[in-house]
Amino acid sequence: MTETTTTRAVAEIGGVPLDVLAERVGSTPFFAYDRAALTERVALLRRTLPRDLQLSYAVKANPMPAVVQHLAGLVDSLDVASADEMRVALDTPLDGSRISFAGPGKTPAEIRRAVAANVTIEMESETEARRVAQAGEELGIRPRAAVRVNPDFRVKGSGMRMGGGPQQFGVDAEVVPDLLREIAATDIEFRGFHIFAGSQNLSAEILCEAQRKTVELALALAAEAPDPVRYLNIGGGFGIPYFDKDEPLDLDAIGANLHELLSTLVRPALGDETRVVTELGRYIVGEAGHYVTRVVDRKQSRGQTFLVVDGGMHHQLAASGNFGQVIRRNYPVSIGTRAGAEPSETVSVVGCLCTPLDLLADKALLPEADIGDLVVVHQAGAYGLTASPTAFLSHPAPAEVLV
Amino acid sequence: MTETTTTRAVAEIGGVPLDVLAERVGSTPFFAYDRAALTERVALLRRTLPRDLQLSYAVKANPMPAVVQHLAGLVDSLDVASADEMRVALDTPLDGSRISFAGPGKTPAEIRRAVAANVTIEMESETEARRVAQAGEELGIRPRAAVRVNPDFRVKGSGMRMGGGPQQFGVDAEVVPDLLREIAATDIEFRGFHIFAGSQNLSAEILCEAQRKTVELALALAAEAPDPVRYLNIGGGFGIPYFDKDEPLDLDAIGANLHELLSTLVRPALGDETRVVTELGRYIVGEAGHYVTRVVDRKQSRGQTFLVVDGGMHHQLAASGNFGQVIRRNYPVSIGTRAGAEPSETVSVVGCLCTPLDLLADKALLPEADIGDLVVVHQAGAYGLTASPTAFLSHPAPAEVLV
Repeated sequence: MTETTTTRAVAEIGGVPLDVLAERVGSTPFFAYDRAALTERVALLRRTLPRDLQLSYAVKANPMPAVVQHLAGLVDSLDVASADEMRVALDTPLDGSRISFAGPGKTPAEIRRAVAANVTIEMESETEARRVAQAGEELGIRPRAAVRVNPDFRVKGSGMRMGGGPQQFGVDAEVVPDLLREIAATDIEFRGFHIFAGSQNLSAEILCEAQRKTVELALALAAEAPDPVRYLNIGGGFGIPYFDKDEPLDLDAIGANLHELLSTLVRPALGDETRVVTELGRYIVGEAGHYVTRVVDRKQSRGQTFLVVDGGMHHQLAASGNFGQVIRRNYPVSIGTRAGAEPSETVSVVGCLCTPLDLLADKALLPEADIGDLVVVHQAGAYGLTASPTAFLSHPAPAEVLV
Repeated sequence: MTETTTTRAVAEIGGVPLDVLAERVGSTPFFAYDRAALTERVALLRRTLPRDLQLSYAVKANPMPAVVQHLAGLVDSLDVASADEMRVALDTPLDGSRISFAGPGKTPAEIRRAVAANVTIEMESETEARRVAQAGEELGIRPRAAVRVNPDFRVKGSGMRMGGGPQQFGVDAEVVPDLLREIAATDIEFRGFHIFAGSQNLSAEILCEAQRKTVELALALAAEAPDPVRYLNIGGGFGIPYFDKDEPLDLDAIGANLHELLSTLVRPALGDETRVVTELGRYIVGEAGHYVTRVVDRKQSRGQTFLVVDGGMHHQLAASGNFGQVIRRNYPVSIGTRAGAEPSETVSVVGCLCTPLDLLADKALLPEADIGDLVVVHQAGAYGLTASPTAFLSHPAPAEVLV
């Protein structure tokens, strides 16, 4: 093994030195979410976005109960994408009226649960509208529901496009008026619309343009609605930087744009009572999360150095480049137990799975690390553990802590 | 909803009609593995490969306990890639000497468990060799171990390259002799080598060439070994067809090649006592597995038809094209409750997750299907459920049944 004289200063998460945190958790690998970072991120959003714009946390980004509980105290509402996410959301002090449920393919059983919980169901199709009405009749509860709209425009530069063109999401904008007439004939309490065009966008310019089109479409549809629109979810799509040369989103520009849209368009048309909501997941939790692994082996192979860690793609699939990415690029990675040390060698960080896909960092320039050091994959707070194949090769599940 | 007059003949798995099977399971989605198909696949291998070549099942391909139990009665040995896979393997009637444990980044704790179980540890590095020796000393048990070799050649046309060039897998062939001398100075019971160059290969010609190089490398290394080589794992890498135009592997050609290599090279050099093993996972279980989902919604969006099913990429990630694939192509998909019906419409099959990644079949030509019909994704027996992000969006876990 290589001897090294680099500093062993230790990085901190939530004020706790990483090596101490690893002892407290009791095992590696683990995910650590920084409570203060979550609080600060929501405060930044509150400072920058209009006061009369409400903030919803999209639980799917990170459904860890402690994270959801903490955020429930900071945001106005929660959005869920399954009945089990709804259960986690209902365990917070927020009541059903502060929870919305979106997602294609909701089963009749899920819809009954949502109606029973008084959650706002974002209906994705005519079928779902029929199921909502039926569940309401059967349960004797008036269902709260909104229509999720597949917009008639597309957003460029999104990590994932979720609206425009043919889509499984929502109801095509041009047939929404027909559906609204059908809904008017039922006992559904129509709340408004959810319009969302795409996620993980780093261009404020594109997001501002999408927000304008979203608002214009919402107002046009509101004119066709049987009841006043009391709920308008304009989505989110705010991206975070993952890779070299990614520039953070210009949130000030977004805030200014939303101020203008609300004051000049939305409020004049819909009044002050309407809840206008931006729904954010990744932007709130993504940068607050870190995946901490330990070096189990350090290997040389034909001129290349490998750090083999006790975690891998089974916990943090996105960092391996196998989750929707077209080109694999390195997530930010650091040696948590060599904080402040100069990067001095090019190494590949691989996980413990017996597959070449299990690559956490390809030829990254890092401080020299050895067996026992902690390797941290950053930007791991959103779509990390739950978006990973945890049972792959039957390794133990990692712990998650909120620090 | 569209009325349809197509036949509702139902496909069968393991002789059980799919709709009956769905009732028996009690919920959709689920994975069904065909016991007879597993048996037949092993019988085909036994008929075609040399009698003196042993067959090992790579548990990582599908660790469902019932599948592993069934295969343990058919193959000669099991290969595991983690301590928990080892636990599943040890629950079969096979004893530790019939189990091998491969994979980079084995922790000291995992190595102790393997030594305690008398499992053959395929050591991937000098560090692992030291850990194996130490665990043996501490436990007072002589460890059984082999050296996993990173070959000095590469195999073209593999789905995944796992040998040649710089690798996290195994010990570079050229430094194996040094490691063998170190091992000779310990109390490790040296068994032999594991040499494996790549997986999911459909070309018999390339596999035959790789087998020849593997055998030549093994014999060259055997000449440097301190003890006779009693175990030689030549890997597998036999591919199965997933996509249009994929041709099934020519197993006869593989069998003939292995016959020749064993009789002209391996047996003359290593004798008859040496266990020569081919290790197969996907080839044994891949085609025996089916992922069964139910249509929850049928949507039209701007000229395109979507079948929304109650499963998705959270259970069968590979079918969505997000597991190591560079280009997304459709896995074979059928409407299980419209068996024999002519394909009559082009539809996209999407899952119930609120993400555009959740695409199981993109514009596939299928018989017309409606809400309630069962959509089956085939070739789902290997790297299916366990290689998928089951917690993504917190939907219920699917059942697995062996039929």
